[in-house]
Amino acid sequence: MHFYQYEIRLRARKRGFHLISDEIISVAKGISEIKSGMMQVFIKHTSASLTINENWDPTVRADFERHFNKMVPENAPYYEHNYEGSDDMPAHLKSSLLGSSVTIPITNGKPNTGTWQGIYLCEHRNADTGRNLIISLWGI
Amino acid sequence: MHFYQYEIRLRARKRGFHLISDEIISVAKGISEIKSGMMQVFIKHTSASLTINENWDPTVRADFERHFNKMVPENAPYYEHNYEGSDDMPAHLKSSLLGSSVTIPITNGKPNTGTWQGIYLCEHRNADTGRNLIISLWGI
Amino acid sequence: MHFYQYEIRLRARKRGFHLISDEIISVAKGISEIKSGMMQVFIKHTSASLTINENWDPTVRADFERHFNKMVPENAPYYEHNYEGSDDMPAHLKSSLLGSSVTIPITNGKPNTGTWQGIYLCEHRNADTGRNLIISLWGI
Repeated sequence: MHFYQYEIRLRARKRGFHLISDEIISVAKGISEIKSGMMQVFIKHTSASLTINENWDPTVRADFERHFNKMVPENAPYYEHNYEGSDDMPAHLKSSLLGSSVTIPITNGKPNTGTWQGIYLCEHRNADTGRNLIISLWGI
Repeated sequence: MHFYQYEIRLRARKRGFHLISDEIISVAKGISEIKSGMMQVFIKHTSASLTINENWDPTVRADFERHFNKMVPENAPYYEHNYEGSDDMPAHLKSSLLGSSVTIPITNGKPNTGTWQGIYLCEHRNADTGRNLIISLWGI
Repeated sequence: MHFYQYEIRLRARKRGFHLISDEIISVAKGISEIKSGMMQVFIKHTSASLTINENWDPTVRADFERHFNKMVPENAPYYEHNYEGSDDMPAHLKSSLLGSSVTIPITNGKPNTGTWQGIYLCEHRNADTGRNLIISLWGI
Protein backbone atom coordinates (compact mmCIF):
# COMPACT_ATOMS: atom_id res chain seq x y z
CA MET A 1 0.00 0.00 0.00
CA HIS A 2 0.99 3.58 -0.65
CA PHE A 3 0.47 6.30 1.93
CA TYR A 4 1.44 9.89 1.16
CA GLN A 5 0.83 13.00 3.21
CA TYR A 6 1.38 16.69 2.41
CA GLU A 7 0.88 19.84 4.47
CA ILE A 8 0.27 23.08 2.56
CA ARG A 9 -0.59 26.62 3.44
CA LEU A 10 -3.12 28.29 1.17
CA ARG A 11 -2.71 32.00 0.57
CA ALA A 12 -5.23 34.29 2.26
CA ARG A 13 -8.56 34.55 0.47
CA LYS A 14 -11.44 36.87 1.17
CA ARG A 15 -14.63 35.68 2.87
CA GLY A 16 -16.56 33.44 0.52
CA PHE A 17 -16.30 30.18 -1.39
CA HIS A 18 -13.21 29.48 -3.51
CA LEU A 19 -12.37 26.71 -5.95
CA ILE A 20 -9.05 25.06 -4.93
CA SER A 21 -9.09 21.69 -6.78
CA ASP A 22 -6.12 22.52 -9.03
CA GLU A 23 -4.01 23.71 -6.12
CA ILE A 24 -4.67 20.47 -4.23
CA ILE A 25 -3.88 18.22 -7.17
CA SER A 26 -0.67 20.09 -8.02
CA VAL A 27 0.64 19.39 -4.50
CA ALA A 28 -0.54 15.79 -4.18
CA LYS A 29 2.10 14.37 -6.55
CA GLY A 30 1.79 10.81 -5.21
CA ILE A 31 -1.67 10.50 -6.73
CA SER A 32 -0.20 9.29 -10.02
CA GLU A 33 1.24 6.23 -8.19
CA ILE A 34 -2.19 5.07 -6.99
CA LYS A 35 -4.36 2.79 -9.12
CA SER A 36 -7.22 2.45 -6.61
CA GLY A 37 -7.27 4.62 -3.53
CA MET A 38 -8.50 7.64 -1.64
CA MET A 39 -7.55 11.28 -1.12
CA GLN A 40 -8.56 13.18 2.00
CA VAL A 41 -8.15 16.95 2.35
CA PHE A 42 -8.39 18.24 5.93
CA ILE A 43 -8.44 21.87 7.11
CA LYS A 44 -6.73 22.64 10.44
CA HIS A 45 -9.10 25.47 11.43
CA THR A 46 -12.54 25.90 13.01
CA SER A 47 -13.64 29.03 11.15
CA ALA A 48 -13.15 27.80 7.58
CA SER A 49 -14.25 24.55 5.97
CA LEU A 50 -14.12 22.36 2.87
CA THR A 51 -16.87 21.04 0.62
CA ILE A 52 -17.40 19.61 -2.87
CA ASN A 53 -19.68 21.42 -5.29
CA GLU A 54 -20.16 22.87 -8.78
CA ASN A 55 -16.86 23.86 -10.39
CA TRP A 56 -17.91 25.86 -13.40
CA ASP A 57 -20.32 28.71 -12.68
CA PRO A 58 -19.00 31.25 -10.13
CA THR A 59 -22.57 32.37 -9.30
CA VAL A 60 -23.00 29.08 -7.43
CA ARG A 61 -20.21 30.10 -5.07
CA ALA A 62 -21.67 33.59 -4.62
CA ASP A 63 -25.10 32.06 -3.87
CA PHE A 64 -23.43 29.81 -1.28
CA GLU A 65 -22.04 32.88 0.51
CA ARG A 66 -25.44 34.60 0.51
CA HIS A 67 -27.35 31.52 1.59
CA PHE A 68 -25.04 30.58 4.46
CA ASN A 69 -25.11 34.18 5.72
CA LYS A 70 -28.88 33.95 5.92
CA MET A 71 -28.98 30.45 7.43
CA VAL A 72 -26.32 31.35 10.02
CA PRO A 73 -26.79 35.07 10.69
CA GLU A 74 -24.38 37.42 12.44
CA ASN A 75 -25.40 38.96 15.76
CA ALA A 76 -28.01 36.34 16.67
CA PRO A 77 -29.31 37.40 20.11
CA TYR A 78 -28.39 34.01 21.60
CA TYR A 79 -24.66 34.06 20.70
CA GLU A 80 -22.40 34.33 23.74
CA HIS A 81 -19.12 33.72 21.91
CA ASN A 82 -18.25 36.96 20.10
CA TYR A 83 -14.70 37.82 21.21
CA GLU A 84 -13.46 38.28 17.68
CA GLY A 85 -16.38 40.12 16.11
CA SER A 86 -19.75 39.39 14.56
CA ASP A 87 -18.30 36.94 12.03
CA ASP A 88 -16.74 34.77 14.78
CA MET A 89 -19.55 32.48 15.97
CA PRO A 90 -21.20 32.17 12.50
CA ALA A 91 -17.82 30.99 11.19
CA HIS A 92 -17.72 28.15 13.74
CA LEU A 93 -21.29 27.08 12.93
CA LYS A 94 -20.75 27.18 9.15
CA SER A 95 -17.56 25.18 9.60
CA SER A 96 -19.45 22.30 11.27
CA LEU A 97 -22.35 22.44 8.80
CA LEU A 98 -19.99 22.10 5.84
CA GLY A 99 -17.29 20.00 7.48
CA SER A 100 -13.53 19.96 8.06
CA SER A 101 -12.64 17.53 5.30
CA VAL A 102 -13.52 16.02 1.95
CA THR A 103 -12.60 12.46 0.90
CA ILE A 104 -12.50 11.53 -2.77
CA PRO A 105 -11.84 8.18 -4.51
CA ILE A 106 -8.77 7.86 -6.73
CA THR A 107 -8.87 5.66 -9.82
CA ASN A 108 -5.96 5.16 -12.25
CA GLY A 109 -3.91 7.98 -10.76
CA LYS A 110 -6.63 10.62 -10.79
CA PRO A 111 -9.47 11.85 -8.56
CA ASN A 112 -12.57 9.94 -9.66
CA THR A 113 -14.97 12.85 -9.34
CA GLY A 114 -17.90 13.84 -11.53
CA THR A 115 -17.36 16.31 -14.37
CA TRP A 116 -18.80 19.23 -12.41
CA GLN A 117 -17.33 18.52 -8.99
CA GLY A 118 -14.67 20.78 -7.51
CA ILE A 119 -13.21 21.31 -4.03
CA TYR A 120 -14.24 24.55 -2.32
CA LEU A 121 -12.34 26.35 0.40
CA CYS A 122 -15.12 27.96 2.46
CA GLU A 123 -13.61 31.04 4.13
CA HIS A 124 -16.00 32.21 6.84
CA ARG A 125 -13.95 35.05 8.40
CA ASN A 126 -13.76 38.66 7.22
CA ALA A 127 -10.06 39.15 7.81
CA ASP A 128 -8.02 37.42 5.16
CA THR A 129 -5.70 34.78 6.58
CA GLY A 130 -3.82 31.81 5.20
CA ARG A 131 -5.18 28.35 5.90
CA ASN A 132 -3.31 25.09 6.57
CA LEU A 133 -4.43 21.88 4.90
CA ILE A 134 -3.28 18.28 5.15
CA ILE A 135 -3.64 16.13 2.06
CA SER A 136 -3.50 12.36 2.65
CA LEU A 137 -3.43 9.73 -0.10
CA TRP A 138 -3.67 5.97 0.32
CA GLY A 139 -4.31 2.96 -1.89
CA ILE A 140 -2.70 0.36 -4.09
CA MET B 1 -4.10 -4.82 2.78
CA HIS B 2 -7.15 -5.17 0.60
CA PHE B 3 -8.42 -2.35 -1.59
CA TYR B 4 -11.55 -2.81 -3.71
CA GLN B 5 -13.40 -0.25 -5.78
CA TYR B 6 -16.74 -0.45 -7.61
CA GLU B 7 -18.58 2.06 -9.79
CA ILE B 8 -22.35 1.67 -10.02
CA ARG B 9 -25.19 3.59 -11.57
CA LEU B 10 -28.33 3.84 -9.47
CA ARG B 11 -31.63 3.89 -11.33
CA ALA B 12 -33.47 7.22 -11.42
CA ARG B 13 -35.42 8.04 -8.27
CA LYS B 14 -37.86 10.84 -7.66
CA ARG B 15 -36.93 13.89 -5.57
CA GLY B 16 -36.62 12.90 -1.93
CA PHE B 17 -34.68 10.63 0.39
CA HIS B 18 -34.24 6.94 -0.50
CA LEU B 19 -32.76 4.02 1.41
CA ILE B 20 -30.01 2.36 -0.66
CA SER B 21 -28.04 0.30 1.91
CA ASP B 22 -28.96 -3.09 0.42
CA GLU B 23 -28.07 -2.00 -3.09
CA ILE B 24 -24.63 -0.83 -1.92
CA ILE B 25 -23.87 -3.99 0.03
CA SER B 26 -24.97 -6.25 -2.82
CA VAL B 27 -22.40 -4.60 -5.12
CA ALA B 28 -19.52 -4.36 -2.63
CA LYS B 29 -18.69 -8.08 -2.72
CA GLY B 30 -15.16 -7.60 -1.36
CA ILE B 31 -16.53 -6.61 2.03
CA SER B 32 -16.62 -10.27 3.12
CA GLU B 33 -12.81 -10.42 2.71
CA ILE B 34 -12.21 -7.60 5.21
CA LYS B 35 -11.84 -8.30 8.92
CA SER B 36 -11.19 -4.69 9.96
CA GLY B 37 -11.62 -1.90 7.47
CA MET B 38 -13.63 0.91 5.96
CA MET B 39 -16.21 1.44 3.23
CA GLN B 40 -16.67 4.78 1.54
CA VAL B 41 -19.57 5.56 -0.78
CA PHE B 42 -19.08 8.67 -2.95
CA ILE B 43 -21.62 10.33 -5.27
CA LYS B 44 -20.27 11.91 -8.48
CA HIS B 45 -22.84 14.71 -8.63
CA THR B 46 -23.41 18.14 -7.09
CA SER B 47 -27.22 18.10 -6.95
CA ALA B 48 -27.68 14.86 -5.01
CA SER B 49 -25.99 13.69 -1.83
CA LEU B 50 -25.52 10.84 0.63
CA THR B 51 -26.19 10.61 4.35
CA ILE B 52 -26.73 8.05 7.11
CA ASN B 53 -30.00 8.04 9.03
CA GLU B 54 -32.97 6.04 10.32
CA ASN B 55 -33.63 2.95 8.22
CA TRP B 56 -37.00 1.77 9.43
CA ASP B 57 -39.74 4.40 9.42
CA PRO B 58 -40.34 6.02 5.99
CA THR B 59 -41.88 9.11 7.64
CA VAL B 60 -38.35 10.11 8.68
CA ARG B 61 -37.37 10.32 5.01
CA ALA B 62 -40.51 12.29 4.15
CA ASP B 63 -39.80 14.69 7.04
CA PHE B 64 -36.25 15.12 5.70
CA GLU B 65 -37.64 16.22 2.33
CA ARG B 66 -40.03 18.72 3.95
CA HIS B 67 -37.44 20.10 6.34
CA PHE B 68 -34.70 20.58 3.75
CA ASN B 69 -37.17 22.31 1.43
CA LYS B 70 -37.90 24.81 4.20
CA MET B 71 -34.29 25.28 5.27
CA VAL B 72 -33.12 25.72 1.66
CA PRO B 73 -36.09 27.28 -0.15
CA GLU B 74 -36.62 27.56 -3.89
CA ASN B 75 -36.67 31.01 -5.49
CA ALA B 76 -34.74 32.80 -2.73
CA PRO B 77 -34.41 36.40 -3.94
CA TYR B 78 -30.60 36.26 -3.67
CA TYR B 79 -30.05 33.23 -5.97
CA GLU B 80 -28.26 34.14 -9.20
CA HIS B 81 -27.70 30.58 -10.41
CA ASN B 82 -31.04 29.33 -11.77
CA TYR B 83 -30.30 28.12 -15.32
CA GLU B 84 -31.96 24.80 -14.75
CA GLY B 85 -35.03 25.84 -12.79
CA SER B 86 -36.06 26.66 -9.25
CA ASP B 87 -34.75 23.34 -7.88
CA ASP B 88 -31.23 23.96 -9.27
CA MET B 89 -29.51 26.14 -6.65
CA PRO B 90 -31.30 24.54 -3.66
CA ALA B 91 -29.99 21.17 -4.89
CA HIS B 92 -26.39 22.43 -4.78
CA LEU B 93 -26.82 23.85 -1.27
CA LYS B 94 -28.49 20.70 0.09
CA SER B 95 -25.73 18.62 -1.47
CA SER B 96 -23.04 20.47 0.53
CA LEU B 97 -25.09 20.48 3.75
CA LEU B 98 -25.52 16.71 3.62
CA GLY B 99 -22.26 15.79 1.92
CA SER B 100 -20.95 13.86 -1.09
CA SER B 101 -19.92 10.72 0.79
CA VAL B 102 -20.42 8.47 3.77
CA THR B 103 -17.65 6.38 5.35
CA ILE B 104 -18.53 3.38 7.49
CA PRO B 105 -16.33 0.98 9.50
CA ILE B 106 -16.24 -2.70 8.48
CA THR B 107 -15.82 -5.39 11.13
CA ASN B 108 -15.73 -9.15 10.42
CA GLY B 109 -16.86 -8.75 6.81
CA LYS B 110 -19.84 -6.51 7.51
CA PRO B 111 -20.64 -2.81 7.89
CA ASN B 112 -20.36 -2.06 11.61
CA THR B 113 -23.34 0.28 11.76
CA GLY B 114 -25.99 0.70 14.46
CA THR B 115 -29.23 -1.26 14.21
CA TRP B 116 -31.19 1.71 12.88
CA GLN B 117 -28.61 3.20 10.51
CA GLY B 118 -29.11 3.09 6.75
CA ILE B 119 -27.56 4.88 3.77
CA TYR B 120 -29.79 7.46 2.11
CA LEU B 121 -29.54 8.68 -1.46
CA CYS B 122 -30.71 12.30 -1.20
CA GLU B 123 -32.13 13.23 -4.62
CA HIS B 124 -32.53 17.01 -4.76
CA ARG B 125 -33.64 17.46 -8.38
CA ASN B 126 -37.20 17.21 -9.74
CA ALA B 127 -36.32 15.42 -12.96
CA ASP B 128 -35.54 11.78 -12.34
CA THR B 129 -32.04 10.84 -13.40
CA GLY B 130 -29.64 8.01 -12.61
CA ARG B 131 -26.75 8.70 -10.26
CA ASN B 132 -23.19 7.34 -10.33
CA LEU B 133 -21.55 6.15 -7.13
CA ILE B 134 -18.08 4.87 -6.31
CA ILE B 135 -17.79 2.35 -3.50
CA SER B 136 -14.30 1.92 -2.04
CA LEU B 137 -13.31 -0.71 0.52
CA TRP B 138 -10.00 -1.03 2.35
CA GLY B 139 -8.66 -2.88 5.34
CA ILE B 140 -7.04 -6.08 6.53
CA MET C 1 0.10 -1.09 6.79
CA HIS C 2 -1.43 -0.90 10.23
CA PHE C 3 -5.15 -1.16 10.82
CA TYR C 4 -6.59 -0.87 14.32
CA GLN C 5 -10.21 -0.73 15.40
CA TYR C 6 -11.80 -0.05 18.80
CA GLU C 7 -15.42 0.01 19.94
CA ILE C 8 -16.24 2.13 22.97
CA ARG C 9 -19.36 3.16 24.84
CA LEU C 10 -19.44 6.77 25.99
CA ARG C 11 -21.24 7.48 29.26
CA ALA C 12 -24.59 9.24 28.98
CA ARG C 13 -24.36 13.00 28.49
CA LYS C 14 -27.12 15.56 28.59
CA ARG C 15 -28.46 17.17 25.40
CA GLY C 16 -25.86 19.50 23.95
CA PHE C 17 -22.34 19.55 22.55
CA HIS C 18 -19.52 17.84 24.48
CA LEU C 19 -15.77 17.74 23.94
CA ILE C 20 -14.57 14.12 23.75
CA SER C 21 -11.11 14.37 22.10
CA ASP C 22 -9.19 13.15 25.16
CA GLU C 23 -11.49 10.17 25.64
CA ILE C 24 -10.99 9.12 22.00
CA ILE C 25 -7.23 9.45 22.09
CA SER C 26 -6.91 7.54 25.36
CA VAL C 27 -8.68 4.55 23.77
CA ALA C 28 -6.96 4.65 20.36
CA LYS C 29 -3.63 3.30 21.65
CA GLY C 30 -2.45 2.18 18.21
CA ILE C 31 -2.09 5.78 17.11
CA SER C 32 1.48 5.91 18.45
CA GLU C 33 2.47 3.17 15.95
CA ILE C 34 1.39 5.23 12.93
CA LYS C 35 3.79 7.65 11.23
CA SER C 36 1.39 8.76 8.47
CA GLY C 37 -2.22 7.72 8.60
CA MET C 38 -5.83 8.44 9.40
CA MET C 39 -8.25 8.13 12.32
CA GLN C 40 -11.98 7.83 11.80
CA VAL C 41 -14.50 8.09 14.62
CA PHE C 42 -17.99 6.79 13.78
CA ILE C 43 -21.15 7.00 15.89
CA LYS C 44 -23.59 4.07 15.67
CA HIS C 45 -26.74 6.16 16.22
CA THR C 46 -29.08 8.37 14.21
CA SER C 47 -30.01 10.87 16.93
CA ALA C 48 -26.51 11.95 17.94
CA SER C 49 -23.58 13.03 15.77
CA LEU C 50 -19.91 14.00 15.67
CA THR C 51 -18.20 17.16 14.49
CA ILE C 52 -14.90 19.04 14.85
CA ASN C 53 -14.90 22.53 16.32
CA GLU C 54 -13.41 24.96 18.84
CA ASN C 55 -11.97 23.17 21.86
CA TRP C 56 -11.32 25.96 24.32
CA ASP C 57 -14.29 28.23 25.00
CA PRO C 58 -17.40 26.38 26.27
CA THR C 59 -19.67 29.20 25.09
CA VAL C 60 -19.07 27.97 21.52
CA ARG C 61 -20.67 24.65 22.46
CA ALA C 62 -23.60 26.39 24.19
CA ASP C 63 -24.11 28.60 21.11
CA PHE C 64 -24.13 25.44 18.95
CA GLU C 65 -26.99 24.01 21.02
CA ARG C 66 -29.00 27.24 20.76
CA HIS C 67 -28.35 27.69 17.05
CA PHE C 68 -29.21 24.13 16.06
CA ASN C 69 -32.42 24.30 18.10
CA LYS C 70 -33.44 27.35 16.10
CA MET C 71 -32.36 25.97 12.71
CA VAL C 72 -34.09 22.63 13.36
CA PRO C 73 -37.05 23.45 15.61
CA GLU C 74 -39.15 21.04 17.64
CA ASN C 75 -42.81 20.57 16.75
CA ALA C 76 -42.53 21.79 13.15
CA PRO C 77 -46.04 21.40 11.71
CA TYR C 78 -44.75 19.19 8.88
CA TYR C 79 -43.11 16.50 11.07
CA GLU C 80 -44.88 13.14 10.85
CA HIS C 81 -42.28 11.14 12.77
CA ASN C 82 -42.76 11.97 16.47
CA TYR C 83 -43.16 8.60 18.21
CA GLU C 84 -40.54 9.40 20.80
CA GLY C 85 -41.36 13.02 21.57
CA SER C 86 -40.68 16.48 20.24
CA ASP C 87 -36.90 16.01 20.27
CA ASP C 88 -37.10 12.88 18.07
CA MET C 89 -37.30 14.20 14.49
CA PRO C 90 -35.03 17.24 15.14
CA ALA C 91 -32.40 14.79 16.45
CA HIS C 92 -32.44 12.85 13.16
CA LEU C 93 -32.14 16.05 11.11
CA LYS C 94 -29.30 17.48 13.22
CA SER C 95 -27.51 14.15 12.98
CA SER C 96 -27.42 14.32 9.17
CA LEU C 97 -26.50 18.03 9.11
CA LEU C 98 -23.49 17.43 11.35
CA GLY C 99 -22.62 13.91 10.24
CA SER C 100 -22.03 10.45 11.67
CA SER C 101 -18.23 10.54 11.58
CA VAL C 102 -15.07 12.63 11.64
CA THR C 103 -11.84 11.65 9.90
CA ILE C 104 -8.55 13.19 11.00
CA PRO C 105 -5.00 12.80 9.64
CA ILE C 106 -2.34 11.23 11.87
CA THR C 107 1.26 12.40 11.64
CA ASN C 108 4.13 11.03 13.77
CA GLY C 109 1.84 9.13 16.12
CA LYS C 110 -0.56 11.99 16.85
CA PRO C 111 -3.72 13.54 15.42
CA ASN C 112 -2.55 16.32 13.07
CA THR C 113 -5.28 18.79 13.99
CA GLY C 114 -5.09 22.54 14.43
CA THR C 115 -4.44 24.01 17.89
CA TRP C 116 -8.09 24.85 18.48
CA GLN C 117 -9.74 21.76 16.98
CA GLY C 118 -11.51 19.25 19.20
CA ILE C 119 -13.99 16.42 18.60
CA TYR C 120 -17.56 17.10 19.74
CA LEU C 121 -20.15 14.52 20.66
CA CYS C 122 -23.42 16.19 19.60
CA GLU C 123 -26.16 14.72 21.81
CA HIS C 124 -29.52 15.64 20.29
CA ARG C 125 -31.88 13.72 22.60
CA ASN C 126 -33.25 14.89 25.96
CA ALA C 127 -32.99 11.57 27.73
CA ASP C 128 -29.43 10.77 28.67
CA THR C 129 -28.16 7.59 27.07
CA GLY C 130 -24.76 6.09 26.39
CA ARG C 131 -23.46 6.18 22.82
CA ASN C 132 -21.38 3.59 20.94
CA LEU C 133 -18.45 4.72 18.80
CA ILE C 134 -16.06 2.88 16.53
CA ILE C 135 -12.55 4.26 16.22
CA SER C 136 -10.57 3.07 13.20
CA LEU C 137 -6.89 3.83 12.56
CA TRP C 138 -4.89 3.04 9.43
CA GLY C 139 -1.57 4.06 7.94
CA ILE C 140 2.12 3.25 7.79
